[in-house]
Amino acid sequence: MPERSASDRTSEPTTPATASFSRRALIASFAATAGVAGVSGALVAEAREPASPGPHADAGRRVEPFHGAHQPGIATAQQRYALFAAFDLETADPRGGRLPADRVAANFAQIMERWTVAAERLMRGEAPGPIPANVRDAPADTGIADGLAPAGLTLTFGLGPDLFDRIGRPEQRPRRLRALPAFAGDQLQAAWSGGELLVQICGDDPQVLSHAFRAIRGRTPGLARLRWSQQGFLGRFGDGTPRNLFGHKDGTANPRAGTTAFDDTVWVTAPDEPAWFSGGTYLVFRKIRMDLPKWDTSTAQQQDRSIGRRRDTGAPLSGGDEFTAPDFERAGPDGTPAIPPDSHVALVRGAPMLRRSYNYDYAFPVATGPSGGAHDHGGDGPGHSHGDHPHDHAAAGHDSYDSGTLFCAFLRDPGEFVRAQRALAESDRLNAFIRHTGSAVFAVPPGIRPGQHLAAPLFPPR
Amino acid sequence: MPERSASDRTSEPTTPATASFSRRALIASFAATAGVAGVSGALVAEAREPASPGPHADAGRRVEPFHGAHQPGIATAQQRYALFAAFDLETADPRGGRLPADRVAANFAQIMERWTVAAERLMRGEAPGPIPANVRDAPADTGIADGLAPAGLTLTFGLGPDLFDRIGRPEQRPRRLRALPAFAGDQLQAAWSGGELLVQICGDDPQVLSHAFRAIRGRTPGLARLRWSQQGFLGRFGDGTPRNLFGHKDGTANPRAGTTAFDDTVWVTAPDEPAWFSGGTYLVFRKIRMDLPKWDTSTAQQQDRSIGRRRDTGAPLSGGDEFTAPDFERAGPDGTPAIPPDSHVALVRGAPMLRRSYNYDYAFPVATGPSGGAHDHGGDGPGHSHGDHPHDHAAAGHDSYDSGTLFCAFLRDPGEFVRAQRALAESDRLNAFIRHTGSAVFAVPPGIRPGQHLAAPLFPPR
Ligand code: HEM
Ligand code: HEM
Repeated sequence: MPERSASDRTSEPTTPATASFSRRALIASFAATAGVAGVSGALVAEAREPASPGPHADAGRRVEPFHGAHQPGIATAQQRYALFAAFDLETADPRGGRLPADRVAANFAQIMERWTVAAERLMRGEAPGPIPANVRDAPADTGIADGLAPAGLTLTFGLGPDLFDRIGRPEQRPRRLRALPAFAGDQLQAAWSGGELLVQICGDDPQVLSHAFRAIRGRTPGLARLRWSQQGFLGRFGDGTPRNLFGHKDGTANPRAGTTAFDDTVWVTAPDEPAWFSGGTYLVFRKIRMDLPKWDTSTAQQQDRSIGRRRDTGAPLSGGDEFTAPDFERAGPDGTPAIPPDSHVALVRGAPMLRRSYNYDYAFPVATGPSGGAHDHGGDGPGHSHGDHPHDHAAAGHDSYDSGTLFCAFLRDPGEFVRAQRALAESDRLNAFIRHTGSAVFAVPPGIRPGQHLAAPLFPPR
Repeated sequence: MPERSASDRTSEPTTPATASFSRRALIASFAATAGVAGVSGALVAEAREPASPGPHADAGRRVEPFHGAHQPGIATAQQRYALFAAFDLETADPRGGRLPADRVAANFAQIMERWTVAAERLMRGEAPGPIPANVRDAPADTGIADGLAPAGLTLTFGLGPDLFDRIGRPEQRPRRLRALPAFAGDQLQAAWSGGELLVQICGDDPQVLSHAFRAIRGRTPGLARLRWSQQGFLGRFGDGTPRNLFGHKDGTANPRAGTTAFDDTVWVTAPDEPAWFSGGTYLVFRKIRMDLPKWDTSTAQQQDRSIGRRRDTGAPLSGGDEFTAPDFERAGPDGTPAIPPDSHVALVRGAPMLRRSYNYDYAFPVATGPSGGAHDHGGDGPGHSHGDHPHDHAAAGHDSYDSGTLFCAFLRDPGEFVRAQRALAESDRLNAFIRHTGSAVFAVPPGIRPGQHLAAPLFPPR
């Protein structure tokens, strides 16, 4: 089984120099990379700096470190693609009946060991290694990423609220980990809610994600089952804040990695949390459908006043530029607050969380229940009439397009999400345009050193 | 409404020069682009050559020309993302009953005019222009691509077999345009089959595709309805042939743009075709699900002998490298043909078509009928038990993962596809691993000059 070698990686093409790219930068960039033989991620990342220092640069060759105090994919500059996949531990005994609790706990340990080993190798751009239980002579890897650069791949693992009972370790459950309460307006669907294990896969090449996901999934048979998965993307906005599908810059007010504000927002340190969880964080996932046809036919003023910021510049309606602090006291020409008190940013201002969300656009409805979705009308043969338009999607408005935001927040206290979302659910102007259809929450274990396995303190004694 | 200006475009980051990129090429590339002010697509494309001459380079700034003898997105070097969307003309009269045929024909003309104008602007990286029927004060564009480069965007339009009766022009129907026959093993679903109008959107940034699709879709209310859409991707393989989700290089034997073989394969010139269609082509779309779990647990030998080529190098099993001609006479060590006669390439060798397919990976089952797919079990609230695993996807094998190939072929005679697919359906070794679930065929009108509209010869007289 061929692993992807450094020479594979250097055959990766580069986007060319262009008019916007000064001659000096070109030469500097060339000089910085010319000597790189055994391409190191850090070196390449540095060599990139003159050309694209920003967090959203599309760096095929970027290698993110797997080991450290925290898991990757959280403080990591946001990559362009994300796949969120939730699994449940296997509970059915292949010989009938239910698996005893100690078997489930052992399976949990086995899957985390397999996933840890695979993730470490995948993030380095290598094949994930053979699947122990695989058939003889089957290739150890799918090969679909042979010749692809690692593309900044990160894998991040989380543990759902029900997991700790399932593995017989309820006392080790992080104190703030419980299923989110119901919020007004929720229209949640099990098809993308809940889960005992989460894998967040991010990177700059969707085929690299597809490869990693298949390696992760291929290690689960007999141990766990895929519960749901969802995929999102960001446009290539370079140094700029990415725009969501309402056209607004999204992420402006986030804490910046490397600051105390970031660390205080994200990493768990509370003395009441179990010791093993120190350095971890919580992940709140919400699938939020956005009513694009309705949004697109509302006025520019309605749109900006729903958010509380201008779409074009991202500046708060109280004035300034994108990074000017909003002034919620400031009155507009008509004497009312320039930023409406029921605008999105007025309601959630300062809520301590790192939003690391992705746009999603399935472009076509995914079935939402027994009455919705795709039914098999049997091909497009000659006798098949299209005149009656059985799939009247375009006319159905809100239900038509499964497009919106895969909202993903990392924070040391999911209670902060609950407070913010309660305020939003009650009065956010955005509610006219959005609908929460999925929900899940996970504890994200701290990072590890080489040779360790993620979540190992929860494994049963051998 | 701010249009994306050249200055927006130049704020786009560039992937840096790397070790594989010679100093001379860098300087040449710089020199070629330094003087470019009103960035021309052709110039940019040329400037790219030294850095990434291959067809699959990821060029954010690439601008493809809209006008020409043929539509774009066919001979165009394959971009990394594709969205295929099929629409049907509106037949319901808003005042009740059915629209008269002349109204439908007028609607067809209107939609093609709108789409032509929008496509031309979108491909230049501009906003698509106001929607005539839109509400007052609504922004003319969604803004979600503000600040994004055009990313090699192409829009390609096709006309389905039923369209010509629908618009009252049956005599203008291309002679080889008819619904494909049923093939053995077909398991087609209406959810992604058929259609009267097709839009193929390709480009190197999914948010640019999402923007273009929304502009296209936003121009249809009252005129046409979305019937289905599907999205695919390719990995960033640089100059190399992209790999499909079986890990094999896919596209090796394609004719190369600019050759006579290519022109003879793709562009319609036959004297029996209607005059307006000269310079057009046909597009055959098949959604082919690939059974990844089954493939991944078959042996390397089974895999390679199904295709007739080696996965690692792409070389035919008769020997040589990727581009060595297969030798179907050559015997292997056991005396039987080295390339099995029922292997994929043995069955379809030389079939005249340009394959321009994409991988797709929805990673999770999309509903496949009333009995399959996602059902709403009502959220992940505290009382919701996961223990019974209502979504047993991982165990279901073939039905579990909606992943595979969005097969797309351009050819001057869809009969060639039918011949090839009959041979495959009968005996292809690949059949053990794949299932055709979607099918559609379209006539792709020839290209146009500035000021013209696509398919205008079919418009009713005014
Ligand atoms: C589809 C739904 C949503 C959309 C379109 C949306 C959009 C936005 C936009 C455009 C901003 C301003 C720019 C920025 O600072 O990022 C923003 C800010 C913010 N959003 Fe959302 N958001 C959504 C859902 C949520 C949810 C569910 C929460 C949490 C419950 C949330 C929490 C926040 C926070 C904390 C801020 C920063 C406020 C500040 O301190 O200025 N958002 N959102
Ligand atoms: C998921 C289904 C399919 C897979 C995985 C697949 C894969 C491949 C691979 C790996 C090759 C060899 C490399 C190359 O020349 O591109 C190939 C060649 C080819 N395939 Fe397919 N293919 C599929 C479906 C089809 C279908 C439906 C057709 C048309 C009916 C088709 C027509 C061809 C042709 C004409 C060639 C070139 C043969 C030659 O002249 O050497 N393929 N395919």
